Amino acid sequence: MSDLRVGVLGCGRIGRMHADLLANRVDGLAVAAVFDVAPDAAAAVSDRLDVRRADTPEALIQGDDVDVVAVCSSTDTHIDLLVATADAGKPVFIEKPLSLDLAEVDRGIRAVDAAGVPVQVGFNRRFDPSHRSVRQRVLDGDVGDVHLCRITSRDPAPPPITYIEVSGGIFNDMTIHDFDMARFVTGSEVVDVFAHGAVLVDDAIGAAGDFDTIVVTMRHENGAITTIDNSRQAVYGYDQRVEVFGSGGVAMSDNPLTTTTVYRNADGGRQSTVPYFFLDRYVPSYIAEWEAFRDMVRTGSPSPVSMADGRAPLALGMAASLSAREGRIVLISEVG
Amino acid sequence: MSDLRVGVLGCGRIGRMHADLLANRVDGLAVAAVFDVAPDAAAAVSDRLDVRRADTPEALIQGDDVDVVAVCSSTDTHIDLLVATADAGKPVFIEKPLSLDLAEVDRGIRAVDAAGVPVQVGFNRRFDPSHRSVRQRVLDGDVGDVHLCRITSRDPAPPPITYIEVSGGIFNDMTIHDFDMARFVTGSEVVDVFAHGAVLVDDAIGAAGDFDTIVVTMRHENGAITTIDNSRQAVYGYDQRVEVFGSGGVAMSDNPLTTTTVYRNADGGRQSTVPYFFLDRYVPSYIAEWEAFRDMVRTGSPSPVSMADGRAPLALGMAASLSAREGRIVLISEVG
Amino acid sequence: MSDLRVGVLGCGRIGRMHADLLANRVDGLAVAAVFDVAPDAAAAVSDRLDVRRADTPEALIQGDDVDVVAVCSSTDTHIDLLVATADAGKPVFIEKPLSLDLAEVDRGIRAVDAAGVPVQVGFNRRFDPSHRSVRQRVLDGDVGDVHLCRITSRDPAPPPITYIEVSGGIFNDMTIHDFDMARFVTGSEVVDVFAHGAVLVDDAIGAAGDFDTIVVTMRHENGAITTIDNSRQAVYGYDQRVEVFGSGGVAMSDNPLTTTTVYRNADGGRQSTVPYFFLDRYVPSYIAEWEAFRDMVRTGSPSPVSMADGRAPLALGMAASLSAREGRIVLISEVG
Amino acid sequence: MSDLRVGVLGCGRIGRMHADLLANRVDGLAVAAVFDVAPDAAAAVSDRLDVRRADTPEALIQGDDVDVVAVCSSTDTHIDLLVATADAGKPVFIEKPLSLDLAEVDRGIRAVDAAGVPVQVGFNRRFDPSHRSVRQRVLDGDVGDVHLCRITSRDPAPPPITYIEVSGGIFNDMTIHDFDMARFVTGSEVVDVFAHGAVLVDDAIGAAGDFDTIVVTMRHENGAITTIDNSRQAVYGYDQRVEVFGSGGVAMSDNPLTTTTVYRNADGGRQSTVPYFFLDRYVPSYIAEWEAFRDMVRTGSPSPVSMADGRAPLALGMAASLSAREGRIVLISEVG
Repeated sequence: MSDLRVGVLGCGRIGRMHADLLANRVDGLAVAAVFDVAPDAAAAVSDRLDVRRADTPEALIQGDDVDVVAVCSSTDTHIDLLVATADAGKPVFIEKPLSLDLAEVDRGIRAVDAAGVPVQVGFNRRFDPSHRSVRQRVLDGDVGDVHLCRITSRDPAPPPITYIEVSGGIFNDMTIHDFDMARFVTGSEVVDVFAHGAVLVDDAIGAAGDFDTIVVTMRHENGAITTIDNSRQAVYGYDQRVEVFGSGGVAMSDNPLTTTTVYRNADGGRQSTVPYFFLDRYVPSYIAEWEAFRDMVRTGSPSPVSMADGRAPLALGMAASLSAREGRIVLISEVG
Repeated sequence: MSDLRVGVLGCGRIGRMHADLLANRVDGLAVAAVFDVAPDAAAAVSDRLDVRRADTPEALIQGDDVDVVAVCSSTDTHIDLLVATADAGKPVFIEKPLSLDLAEVDRGIRAVDAAGVPVQVGFNRRFDPSHRSVRQRVLDGDVGDVHLCRITSRDPAPPPITYIEVSGGIFNDMTIHDFDMARFVTGSEVVDVFAHGAVLVDDAIGAAGDFDTIVVTMRHENGAITTIDNSRQAVYGYDQRVEVFGSGGVAMSDNPLTTTTVYRNADGGRQSTVPYFFLDRYVPSYIAEWEAFRDMVRTGSPSPVSMADGRAPLALGMAASLSAREGRIVLISEVG
Repeated sequence: MSDLRVGVLGCGRIGRMHADLLANRVDGLAVAAVFDVAPDAAAAVSDRLDVRRADTPEALIQGDDVDVVAVCSSTDTHIDLLVATADAGKPVFIEKPLSLDLAEVDRGIRAVDAAGVPVQVGFNRRFDPSHRSVRQRVLDGDVGDVHLCRITSRDPAPPPITYIEVSGGIFNDMTIHDFDMARFVTGSEVVDVFAHGAVLVDDAIGAAGDFDTIVVTMRHENGAITTIDNSRQAVYGYDQRVEVFGSGGVAMSDNPLTTTTVYRNADGGRQSTVPYFFLDRYVPSYIAEWEAFRDMVRTGSPSPVSMADGRAPLALGMAASLSAREGRIVLISEVG
Repeated sequence: MSDLRVGVLGCGRIGRMHADLLANRVDGLAVAAVFDVAPDAAAAVSDRLDVRRADTPEALIQGDDVDVVAVCSSTDTHIDLLVATADAGKPVFIEKPLSLDLAEVDRGIRAVDAAGVPVQVGFNRRFDPSHRSVRQRVLDGDVGDVHLCRITSRDPAPPPITYIEVSGGIFNDMTIHDFDMARFVTGSEVVDVFAHGAVLVDDAIGAAGDFDTIVVTMRHENGAITTIDNSRQAVYGYDQRVEVFGSGGVAMSDNPLTTTTVYRNADGGRQSTVPYFFLDRYVPSYIAEWEAFRDMVRTGSPSPVSMADGRAPLALGMAASLSAREGRIVLISEVG
């Protein structure tokens, strides 16, 4: 069976990473063409991987050499490119967040439904082997009825203020992964959200209108309660842990360490560091999400991360922002 | 130096445990006399340990053979016995909760202040070596400014409904330890409380007017945010973990395991269970709290768990109950 | 049922520890009398525990107030006291090593057999919950046929040279525990021994005719191969690990840590120390061995550590000494 | 700087793996040509990677498109190909074992010395981040003087008997890695070897003249004692651990687990499996060894795994075989 040929829209950090993984690490997929609004960025990738550089998104999407499209461009272009690809009848892999505007997302959903093309949203952490095995324990019934879910996500260092000014805020650029994880591992929709936001890391983040430290609690339809905490700065590295507790037991994913070595002397034991950031931790999950995409396209199986899965965390982010601002519980039904 | 002679008021489960530890495990303290409203309960202990059985609390408190008094009786008698002992000029060890009524607690505080006697409240978990070392990392500056605190406390199985009906509710009989722990490890007072309560374990608990599953978030004066989760039933045992995260790093205490043995076969690895309940986990902390009490009495050092430390968690419990009932943030200043 | 009354012969470090544990920590046993060749040593214990001080071993052994005898005196007196107690028809707990002379041990065995009294030898590590669960995995068949056994025992610091001069050497005072452990966890007798001995810690130990670092390999009747390593000095604390590997899997006991706390910063993780020495690690095993002794005496069950179990490690120690000296494999049949 | 172009001699399992890693995972190196005595095997790789297929080793070695040569062919061809490449003045990466004949190895060493080309032998485990950090602790002085070294290597399942019949035996095909590791982590040459060999896994292995379970002890020039154990069958997966103990502390590398997830219920905790075999564990080490090779060629730095490092484990394997056969300590000076 020949490789599926992927056209990659957007050659920023995440687009470049996907192009490299597709070229070198994922069986059954190959990069065919790339596009970026900055021609130099696209040229760097097309030269390195020896693939076509398209002059316009349309030239990529419509290309006979492109079977499927990866939308890795800036967030505000996501839905237009999704719709164009769906209209062209080609399967789509699309990065999160889908959009910061739910009406836009709904336009995308309508286009995808009309075209009947398979779509997968890029929530890669669902494919991390450790978080995935937590989900599997729930699916297998080992956790029983889910009562509590705890998610920790802490970045090693804050992004530039220029990023924070356009990201949509911590709930949309960082917690969004945890909102998705909560739905994924509990298997239950969220009913309401309560959030605390604080500025403890850097006053400049507060001056830009954002928080750098947040705690969110959410109630699910099945009665379970999820707690999420985020920080823009964990000096010890990229801290990513998920725990699901229920009537049958508890399943917990922990951080891997960079080595398994322990050193002991009279002062106690020393372990290695945790991975520094998402590329150090999550490359296997990116590879696995592409393998899942490939299988979805080939077999016609349901999307492992559907448009609805892409939409729900956006509504949760809005609810969390509103809650933190107004200091009250916000029902999801209020926002979307 | 001769042993301090302890009179133990109350020979229920916790009083018996203290008497046995004092008799057998704590250097520098000895049991001199015991009292219980049920004479048989007192007799069982006095016979076993070969110590005096007092006919009344006064006969114990006033006894020339009693240097210090341990108040381990039912909660509603705590303050009266505390006041009587303080009036007699003797140091007091008193179990938590001090009372379910803040006015009563304040009466106790006035009596203690007037008498100038040393008092220590029985928050034993402060003396657990693991939780204590988390606190030490904060004190030593290794955690830096505290940003987040996470506390998990889950019991292996619910108490009898008859207990739940009189305990004052989960926030007062179970979360109270975590309220204390949050103040202890962060070193900062709480400003406001938000709580979710749910009935997920046993409907009979809900029928008795209580929750069996709770999540509390609290904001501290220093800006830190604490999250607490409790469940009345963790089928895998007594789950007690504390984490403090800040600008300098993170310190986390985990559950000990009953053995260090790991078994591996093709299915993966098997570890031992966690300790089943508080006696299996916390005996070293009970011994250490007595050693601290002994040192406080002998040296006149400040109380490691003062009356103020006993009062604060009661106010937090009231705030949490109110928050869970009304679905809103409750300021501590509202309740006490 | 009333307590069994123990007479303790020998009030050195180990005798004092046993007396205290019996007085305070073991249900169903009580100290009745003590003896030591140094009257002051005996008086210190008899005063503290308020028990009889016997003027001679005979006065202790023959006492109507003594049901069973604990032989905790110096090694060279063990067999005489064992024989005297057996002749008096009383059960015996006896510390290891039984003797440094196999003929003496055999005299003891004959006396015990003739008297028909229950005897338990003090190999306490068999009762450590972690090592014991390794043994249990073997007994339960989870390890399958045993192929390899690895035992590490390292002391935190060397004993005084004066002790080394009379101890019988590292194989008899230190490895003896590991020889017992190898037989215990594999369930198979040893056929031959090969040993390396080295002086790497302190030349004074070599000058005293002993090694401070040893590696022993042994072949068992069932074909399994055991490896033991010992050091007189592990600066990080008391290192005690056992591993049994077989056709069905592997079971491994690890060192406990003094706390479960982990601290992380940019340099990596920090764990607590391991316990410093045997009292910090093995008190639970000493308590459990007394509970087993009590049950053996009361129920007439077979000894959990028989005279044969006491004898076998002595022969292994002799074989190991000979092997290290001559640089060759030594058959157990050569030495005893 | 343009990529170094590698010619790969041998397209069996290990040659294919190297070619794929060079093509996809290693910066600065590229595959230029491949050869295999089985033309189909070479064609499969050359087609997949779109590189030249050479008809003879000479056609590969002499090719203008080949800067450096990777010798991954069968062991008996290693030295001839090494010599031919050295004579051509090109750097060589060569798989272990160099040969089963020390005289052949010495011929290779002379050719390399005469040509002055850089050579690196494929002991990939030196580049595993965990084992490497053990070595680093020794180099940094944290372990102090090395006293003991323990290495465990156990394969998940035995190779086919046809492989065992030609491999040179367990000491040459399996322990060879551990012989290298012992020299690497202790930083000291071996003086003598003692070995036990047993047939406990499969009688057919014994019938083929080999052992399936071995224990080796070795004394180093610096006085340290190394213990190695190997088994052809660990049902729980690929078990690879290294420990170095010394006057300053202990450093230990452990097995990674396939996920970090722990599940707990009333039966205890469940961990994931260890990696199943060397490809699941050691891909990062293969990548790192190529990066080291690239840097050596570019900078002219000393080889991280020299011809002498390739030779020494062969002598240790011979000594171990002799020791197991004759039941005695064998000096390295006896064999080579």
